[in-house]
Amino acid sequence: MPHSLINRLDFWFDFASTYSYPAAMRIAQMAQERDVAIRYRPFLLGPIFADQGWRNSPFNIFPNKGKYMWRDMARICATHDLAFSKPDPFPQNSLLASRVTLALSEELRPEFVRAVYAAEFGAGKAIAERSILAEILSGLGQNASAVLEKAGQDGVKVKLKSESEEARRLGLFGSPSFVTEDGELFWGHDRLHAALDWASGASTPGKVP
Amino acid sequence: MPHSLINRLDFWFDFASTYSYPAAMRIAQMAQERDVAIRYRPFLLGPIFADQGWRNSPFNIFPNKGKYMWRDMARICATHDLAFSKPDPFPQNSLLASRVTLALSEELRPEFVRAVYAAEFGAGKAIAERSILAEILSGLGQNASAVLEKAGQDGVKVKLKSESEEARRLGLFGSPSFVTEDGELFWGHDRLHAALDWASGASTPGKVP
Repeated sequence: MPHSLINRLDFWFDFASTYSYPAAMRIAQMAQERDVAIRYRPFLLGPIFADQGWRNSPFNIFPNKGKYMWRDMARICATHDLAFSKPDPFPQNSLLASRVTLALSEELRPEFVRAVYAAEFGAGKAIAERSILAEILSGLGQNASAVLEKAGQDGVKVKLKSESEEARRLGLFGSPSFVTEDGELFWGHDRLHAALDWASGASTPGKVP
Repeated sequence: MPHSLINRLDFWFDFASTYSYPAAMRIAQMAQERDVAIRYRPFLLGPIFADQGWRNSPFNIFPNKGKYMWRDMARICATHDLAFSKPDPFPQNSLLASRVTLALSEELRPEFVRAVYAAEFGAGKAIAERSILAEILSGLGQNASAVLEKAGQDGVKVKLKSESEEARRLGLFGSPSFVTEDGELFWGHDRLHAALDWASGASTPGKVP
């Protein structure tokens, strides 16, 4: 089937986000089962949070919500047989990992994104660090130095900025977020199913007023 | 089976909460299918929000989150064949409806709770108003004046206060919340399934570290 006939879903994520981890680990398989093509779109949630006065993760700002989230994550990861570990510090700075993603070809992104999330929340690694990202890239058979160099160039920096601006324009306020071709927004790992159903035409948009 | 042998789940809710509407409309049937007994526990989320500096619904404070929530609610209600309408003003003051719930016997609460949520988010009615609650009570065959009088007495006022303090002690930060007998907390309509599975022993708590 030519690509243009396949339904598409945009997967927007910030690498600092906990609930984006199970979403990233599951989305490719689930999308394949529904013939939906995923576009991996890293963005920076920090500036959007800063707009609403948050200079830290809401899970750190609101302790009860944070305590709940870590427990909820443990349950979700157990349900989906995903390893689970808390990175230190949390949240991790997601800037470099986002730039590296955009420095890679679209074909390579899914595997890299999964590897970063697995390192961060499966193994508790500090994915903010250049050395950790270099390890991940090497593990995927990439030339780590070359990719990291490209990630530091203006083209990639500008691209991440414009993607983050696009996220704001779309009204995104959390990660993971999913946006369908007809502009329907879904937020959260717990909406992954609904987003894919919508994208594949399996849900009943007509019923929604 | 004697009541003590049935698994129990506490359903904590604030009548102002949008996502508590589908939870309230669905929980009884879902719980019955799993042999779980539900305790209906209204509480006031306002003081908990106030602790974190919120004097309004977070859906009003954060416009993008609010805009998303109303769309998400419309989709959820369409999925579950529930009528959907926005009350004006939003949020509704939930104090009196909560007191009335506690003025009723435990047996009468489920039906009253559903009727209030259906009036509020199904028909868009102002459930903060005494007259609307009187209509609902009459519709359920209750003596509205007598129940409303009891709802204004100290016994009920003190009970709602202590329930709201218990909610804070449990670390609740949103509505709906579900708490199992072994102290497991689930938050949100999208965790209703998981909460009931946990309460009925169908989930695998042993796997969670």
